Amino acid sequence: MKLFQHSLSLFIVLSLFSLNAVLAAEITSDITLSPQTKTCIGCHSNVTPGIVQDWLTSRHARTLPGEALKKLSLEKRISADTLPEGLRKYVVGCYECHSRNVDNHKDTFTHMGHRLQVVVSPNDCKTCHPVEADQFSGSKKYYAYKNLMENPVYLTLVNTSTGLKRFDNGKILTEKPSDATLHETCLGCHGTMLLVKGMKTVATKMGDIEVPDITSWPNQGVGRLNPDGSLGACTACHPRHGFSIEVARKPYTCSQCHHEPDVPAWNVYEESKHGNIYSSKGKDWNFNAVPWKVGEDMKAPTCATCHNSLLVSPSGTVLAERTHNFGARLWVRLFGLIYSHPQPKLGDTTVIKNKDGLPLPVTFTGEPAADYLIDASEQERRLAVMSGVCYGCHGTNWTNGHFVKLGNTLKETNAMTVSTTQLLVRAWDKGLADKTNPFDESIEQMWVRQWLFYSNSIRYASAMTGAPDYTSFKNGWWDLTENLQKLLETIEFKKEVYESD
Amino acid sequence: MKLFQHSLSLFIVLSLFSLNAVLAAEITSDITLSPQTKTCIGCHSNVTPGIVQDWLTSRHARTLPGEALKKLSLEKRISADTLPEGLRKYVVGCYECHSRNVDNHKDTFTHMGHRLQVVVSPNDCKTCHPVEADQFSGSKKYYAYKNLMENPVYLTLVNTSTGLKRFDNGKILTEKPSDATLHETCLGCHGTMLLVKGMKTVATKMGDIEVPDITSWPNQGVGRLNPDGSLGACTACHPRHGFSIEVARKPYTCSQCHHEPDVPAWNVYEESKHGNIYSSKGKDWNFNAVPWKVGEDMKAPTCATCHNSLLVSPSGTVLAERTHNFGARLWVRLFGLIYSHPQPKLGDTTVIKNKDGLPLPVTFTGEPAADYLIDASEQERRLAVMSGVCYGCHGTNWTNGHFVKLGNTLKETNAMTVSTTQLLVRAWDKGLADKTNPFDESIEQMWVRQWLFYSNSIRYASAMTGAPDYTSFKNGWWDLTENLQKLLETIEFKKEVYESD
Amino acid sequence: MKLFQHSLSLFIVLSLFSLNAVLAAEITSDITLSPQTKTCIGCHSNVTPGIVQDWLTSRHARTLPGEALKKLSLEKRISADTLPEGLRKYVVGCYECHSRNVDNHKDTFTHMGHRLQVVVSPNDCKTCHPVEADQFSGSKKYYAYKNLMENPVYLTLVNTSTGLKRFDNGKILTEKPSDATLHETCLGCHGTMLLVKGMKTVATKMGDIEVPDITSWPNQGVGRLNPDGSLGACTACHPRHGFSIEVARKPYTCSQCHHEPDVPAWNVYEESKHGNIYSSKGKDWNFNAVPWKVGEDMKAPTCATCHNSLLVSPSGTVLAERTHNFGARLWVRLFGLIYSHPQPKLGDTTVIKNKDGLPLPVTFTGEPAADYLIDASEQERRLAVMSGVCYGCHGTNWTNGHFVKLGNTLKETNAMTVSTTQLLVRAWDKGLADKTNPFDESIEQMWVRQWLFYSNSIRYASAMTGAPDYTSFKNGWWDLTENLQKLLETIEFKKEVYESD
Repeated sequence: MKLFQHSLSLFIVLSLFSLNAVLAAEITSDITLSPQTKTCIGCHSNVTPGIVQDWLTSRHARTLPGEALKKLSLEKRISADTLPEGLRKYVVGCYECHSRNVDNHKDTFTHMGHRLQVVVSPNDCKTCHPVEADQFSGSKKYYAYKNLMENPVYLTLVNTSTGLKRFDNGKILTEKPSDATLHETCLGCHGTMLLVKGMKTVATKMGDIEVPDITSWPNQGVGRLNPDGSLGACTACHPRHGFSIEVARKPYTCSQCHHEPDVPAWNVYEESKHGNIYSSKGKDWNFNAVPWKVGEDMKAPTCATCHNSLLVSPSGTVLAERTHNFGARLWVRLFGLIYSHPQPKLGDTTVIKNKDGLPLPVTFTGEPAADYLIDASEQERRLAVMSGVCYGCHGTNWTNGHFVKLGNTLKETNAMTVSTTQLLVRAWDKGLADKTNPFDESIEQMWVRQWLFYSNSIRYASAMTGAPDYTSFKNGWWDLTENLQKLLETIEFKKEVYESD
Repeated sequence: MKLFQHSLSLFIVLSLFSLNAVLAAEITSDITLSPQTKTCIGCHSNVTPGIVQDWLTSRHARTLPGEALKKLSLEKRISADTLPEGLRKYVVGCYECHSRNVDNHKDTFTHMGHRLQVVVSPNDCKTCHPVEADQFSGSKKYYAYKNLMENPVYLTLVNTSTGLKRFDNGKILTEKPSDATLHETCLGCHGTMLLVKGMKTVATKMGDIEVPDITSWPNQGVGRLNPDGSLGACTACHPRHGFSIEVARKPYTCSQCHHEPDVPAWNVYEESKHGNIYSSKGKDWNFNAVPWKVGEDMKAPTCATCHNSLLVSPSGTVLAERTHNFGARLWVRLFGLIYSHPQPKLGDTTVIKNKDGLPLPVTFTGEPAADYLIDASEQERRLAVMSGVCYGCHGTNWTNGHFVKLGNTLKETNAMTVSTTQLLVRAWDKGLADKTNPFDESIEQMWVRQWLFYSNSIRYASAMTGAPDYTSFKNGWWDLTENLQKLLETIEFKKEVYESD
Repeated sequence: MKLFQHSLSLFIVLSLFSLNAVLAAEITSDITLSPQTKTCIGCHSNVTPGIVQDWLTSRHARTLPGEALKKLSLEKRISADTLPEGLRKYVVGCYECHSRNVDNHKDTFTHMGHRLQVVVSPNDCKTCHPVEADQFSGSKKYYAYKNLMENPVYLTLVNTSTGLKRFDNGKILTEKPSDATLHETCLGCHGTMLLVKGMKTVATKMGDIEVPDITSWPNQGVGRLNPDGSLGACTACHPRHGFSIEVARKPYTCSQCHHEPDVPAWNVYEESKHGNIYSSKGKDWNFNAVPWKVGEDMKAPTCATCHNSLLVSPSGTVLAERTHNFGARLWVRLFGLIYSHPQPKLGDTTVIKNKDGLPLPVTFTGEPAADYLIDASEQERRLAVMSGVCYGCHGTNWTNGHFVKLGNTLKETNAMTVSTTQLLVRAWDKGLADKTNPFDESIEQMWVRQWLFYSNSIRYASAMTGAPDYTSFKNGWWDLTENLQKLLETIEFKKEVYESD
C-alpha cells in the first residue's frame, strides 16, 4: 500500500507539475519553497486548490523566517529568538507546519511518502511564536473546553440544554448529549476533544487513501484538546491558510462566538459609535500594519484594538503591549456566572471553589470566591492598561466617566440577579420547583435568562457605551423587568393552583 | 388621448435630448442603442434617472448579444444558441426587454407610441437565457407561490398568522388576510399574483398617463404569477436595472428571504468561518468573473458558490456546473415541514400526499412520503456534487466529517419534533386543545416554534458548521429544551386547572 | 494653580512640538491653523493622537470658511451668509469650536491658559451651519430628551422598565432608575441632561488637571440638554472629529438608535432590496458629493437619501431639498404611541393632549389628537415630497402602489392594537390587572409588545417594502397573532383560577 502511495505521489507530482505549470512557475519564481512543500503543492494545487491559493496570499508564503528574525522589535511578527536550522531558509509552507512535531502527534500518518500530522496545534505554532503561545496558555480561552466540561455545574447546564429529549409516559427524559451535537453547539466555540481512534480509508479523486480517524473533527474551537496533548487552536481566530492579521483584527472573527444572546459583544459593537465608524470607514484603514498606529492605521477601535493588539501612537509611543492572554487587560468579568465578578486569577477556572463548595466564582447570593479572583490593586492596574487604550482618542474625564458608569451597571445587574435568585429560592423552598437540577424547570430557565442573557447584554452594552437597544428593549432592562414579573406571577399562580388542591 | 400622448412624447424627446445632451452624448458614443431604447432614455434619463444610470452600469448596456454568442463555452453568460435578428446588433436596452413578448402579456399597454409590457418575466429573459430559465422552472422557487397558497395545510398557517383579528364578545375572530398584507408578508418572498384589472390614469411630472392597473404590484417575489402566464421573477436575485452578477453572488441577496427565525441561512452564514472571511476580505475578491475560480476569485464561499455558480479551479477544471435549479445540489431539505426530509422530486410540491392523506412530505409522526421524495441513490449523487464544491478547499476526511455531523443533527432535531408532537397529540386527545386548526392555540404555536424556528436554526447552523449560537442559545437547543419544558408544564397546568373544576 | 498650568502648558508645547516635529510640520505646511489650535495640537497630538488624526481627515481641517462661503449654492456645505472675522482665514480646528461661545457655557474652564468649553453644542455649530441648526430645532429629535422625560406616560414606562427591582417579602419593589442606567438606556439615544456640578481634578499623563465636573458625561444623544442651555447633539450623527458626511449618510449611523425591536428601521433596511444593493455595491459609491446625485453617486438609497439629503438628478435638477428636520418628509408617524398617526405639528410633543386628557397623540381606543397633528393636506404635501425621492428611480404607478400598501398596513396594525387594548381593558375591568400603572404587570407587558415591537416592525418593513421576515415571523404578524392568543388564554386562565376560589 505504501509503495502504491509513493508511486501515486510521484505520478501525480509529475503530471500535476505540468498541468499546473503556470501556477507552479509563478510560485517558484517568487518564493523559496522547501522541496517537501513543493511536493505538497504539486498535488494540492489540483486536489484542494483553494487552500493553496489562500496560502499564497499569506505572509507565511512570502516570508523567510530567518529574515523575519532581523526586524525591529515593534515590527516583529515572530517572537522566537532563534529558529531550527531547517526553517530559516524556506518560506513557511505546508510541510513546515504539518511535519513540525510528528513524533508528539497521535494524528501523524504517512502521506505520499512523508510523515505528516493532520492537526497543527498551538504547540507547533510556538516554534516561531513562543511569546504568543505562552500568553495564550494563561488565558481562559486556552482552557475553554476544560472550564466548561470539567465544571459539574456548567456541565449540568450543557447536558440539560443539548441532550435529546424523549417523551415517555407523560414525562420528558433527557439523554446524554451526542458528541456530534456537543461538537456543533458548546464545543463549536469551546473546542472539541480530538481523539485518534486509528486509521480509516477515504475515497479521494486520487483514489483511496488512509488517514487518521479523529473524533469530533473538523473543529477549530479555541480550547480544543489536540492529539499532541496541547490545548487550543490558533486557527479559531487566524483562519487557515491565509493566517491574515487583517481577519483576526476585524470584528467578524470575534463575532463567531461572542454573539447574542449570551455574549453579545459583536452585536453591541456593531451598534456602537465605534462600530458605526468602523462599518462606515473601515474599508480605508490598514489592518495589516505592525505595530498598529492609533489614528493613522485606524480611526476607531475593533475588538482587537482594545483587547489584544500592540498599539502605538503615530509618533511611535507604545500605548498598549500585544497580548494573547485575552483577559490580560480586563479587571472585571462581565459574564455573569451567575454574577459579574473580578477576573479569575488563572485561566483554569475549574480550581475555583466558592463558600458553598461549588466550582463557581460567586455564591448563589453573590459573594465572590475572592481567593481565586484578582484583588483590587490588580483590578486597578488592569483598568489603567485598558484606559491607556482609550486615551489614544479620549481625555481622562471622558474615559473615567465611561468606566464609572460601567461600575454602576455591574452593581445594578448583579442586584437584579439577587432579586431573581431570592424569588427562585422561595419557589424551591415552597416545593414549586426542584433544585436538584437548577436548569431544567421553566421557572429555573426564567432565572437563567436573567443573568445569562439579559444582564450580560446590558453589561456588554455598557462596557462599549453603545447599543442602547441592548440595554433597553433587546434583551435589556425591559426583558429583565418583564421576565422577573412573569417569574413572580408564575410562582404566585402555581401556588394558587397547587396549594388550593 | 393617444394623439396627445404621442405629441407629448415627441415634445419630451426633443426637449430632453437637449436637456440631457451631455448624458445622451456619453451614452450614444459608447454603446449601440436601438432607436426605440434611445427614445425611452430620452425621457427616462430625466423622469427616472436612477434607473437609467443603474442600467448604464450593467453588462446589458455594453454587450451586443450577437457578440456574446461567440464567447467560449465556460465564459458565456448567454445560453441561447441563436437569437432573434433584431436583438443581435443593439445592446440590451429598455425596449429590448419591455417589448419582448407584448402579445402574450396582459400588462401590455401603449406608452409614448410604443407597445410595452410593464413586467419582464422569466419567459422574456428566456430569449437569451433559456438554460437558466429551464433550470429555474424545475425548482421549488419557481413554484414558491403555488406551493404555499395552494397547499391547504400551509394556507391555514398563512391565514391564521396574517389575518386581522377582531375582539368580539370575549372571542378573537380572524378575518381572511388582505391582499396587501399577504403581499408584504409571505408573498413578499414567495411572489404575488399579478392580475391586470384594466387601465388607470396616474399623474406624473409629464402629465397624466394611462397605465395597466396591476394588483399586488410592485413585487419581485421569486415565484410570482406573471401577467404572461409564466411563473417567477429573475429580479428577485438580479435586481433591476444593473442585473449585476456581483449582487446575485453576494449573500445579502439571499438574506432578503433566507432569514431567521424560520430560515436563518444568512444569519448562520454571517457568523460562520466562511462568512467571517467573506466579511473581512470579500471586498478584494472578484464577484464578476465567469467562470468563477475557487481560490483565485474568492477565498471563501458565498451562498452562490455552493448552491449555484459555475465553479472552476484556477487551472480551469470544472468543480461544479452552473444551475438555476436551487435544489439541484441538495440531497436533504433542512426545512422542517414538519420534519427534515429528502428533497422532493419535483419543484411543484402540491402534488405530494403523505400516508395520512395530507399534502406534506412527512406525516405528523415523521414518516416520509417516499414516493414524492428523491431516493437514496439520488441523495448520494447530489451529496457528491456538493462535496465536489467543498473539495475545492477541504480534504475528503474533513468534508465527510462535516456531513456525517449534519446527518446526526437531522436525526436528533427530527426526534425532538417527534417528542413535541407526541406531547401535542396528548393535549389534543385530552381536549386541552382543538386540532381542527393546528396553528391557532398557544400550545400549538409552541409546537410550531419547535420545528419552524428552533430545529431549522440548528440545522442551518449544522449545515454550515458555523454560528454555534444558532445551535445553542439563539433559537437553538436551549430554546428547543426550554420551549418543550414550557409546553409540558402548560399542559400539566391546564389539566390541573380545567380538570379539577 | 493657573500659573502652574500656564507653565506646564508652555513646557508641553515646547517639548511636544519637538517630539512631534514631523507631524507638526506636516500639518502646518498643508493647512492654515489658528495659533490657538496650533497650541492644542501641540499637546493633543501626543495626549490624544487619535482625535487629532481623525480631525486631520475632516473637511474642517482643510477648509477655510471664508472660501467655503463662495461656493455655488447647491455645493455649499456651510449655510451662513457671513462669518465672524476670526473664523474666516483659519481652518476649523480645536479652538474654533471649543472656544465658540465660552461665555454662554457653564462647562467653560481655563485649560492651558485658554478659556474653553468642553461641549460643542448645536448652538455653536450654528455659527457656520445656521440653516441646519434651525431645521433641527423644529424636529422631534431636538426634543428627544424632553419628549420622553417630561411626558408622564412615557416616563412611567421608562421608570417601570429601568428601575432596579428589589424582592422584599413576596413583592417586587421598583426603585427610581439611577442616572447612570438612564444614561445608557433611554438617554443613550434621547440624550442626557448635562449639569455642571463644579470642577474636579483628574489625573492625566501630563499631571493633575482641573476640569468641569459634568453629570451624565460623555453622551452624544440627539436631544441632549447642553450646558449652554441649547438642546441636541450634532455629534449623534456626525461623530467627532472627522465630521464625515460619509458616515452620516451611511445607514450604520442611524442603526445606533433605530434598531429592533422597537424601531427596526436599520434591520428592515438591511434586509430590503435597497439594503441588499447598498451592501453589495455601496463600496463603489460616492458618499461625499454635495449635492448628491441619484443614480450617479449612489444606485440605491440609504436612510439619508430618503429622509435628509439634498438630492439632484445627474443633470442637476433638484429632487429633494436638504433638511435637518427629520420628520419634514414624513406624513405619518409609523411609531405606535400606541397607534400610528399623522405626524405631530411640532417637534415638542409634550404639548399634546388627547381627548382623555393624556399627553398622547391618540387615545387608548385609537382616536387621534387631531389638533396637534398635521392635517390631510399637509400629509399629502409631504407624501408628494417623499414620492419625489422615489421617482428618482421608480415610476408613478410603482411608487403609488407602494404607499397604498403602507396605508393599509397602518390601518390593519392599528386595528390589531384596538383588539388587544379591548382585551386588556376587559382584564382591567374584571380586576385581573390594575390599570394604575399600565406597564407593570405581565398582561400589560404583553399589550406593550403588540404595539411597541410587533406593529412597529410590520410598519417599518412595509414602509421600505423589505424584510418580509419583519412582517412575518420576526416580530411580525406571527408574533402579533401568537401574543394576542397568549394574552387571551392568560386572561381566561386567570379568570378560571382566581374566580373559582
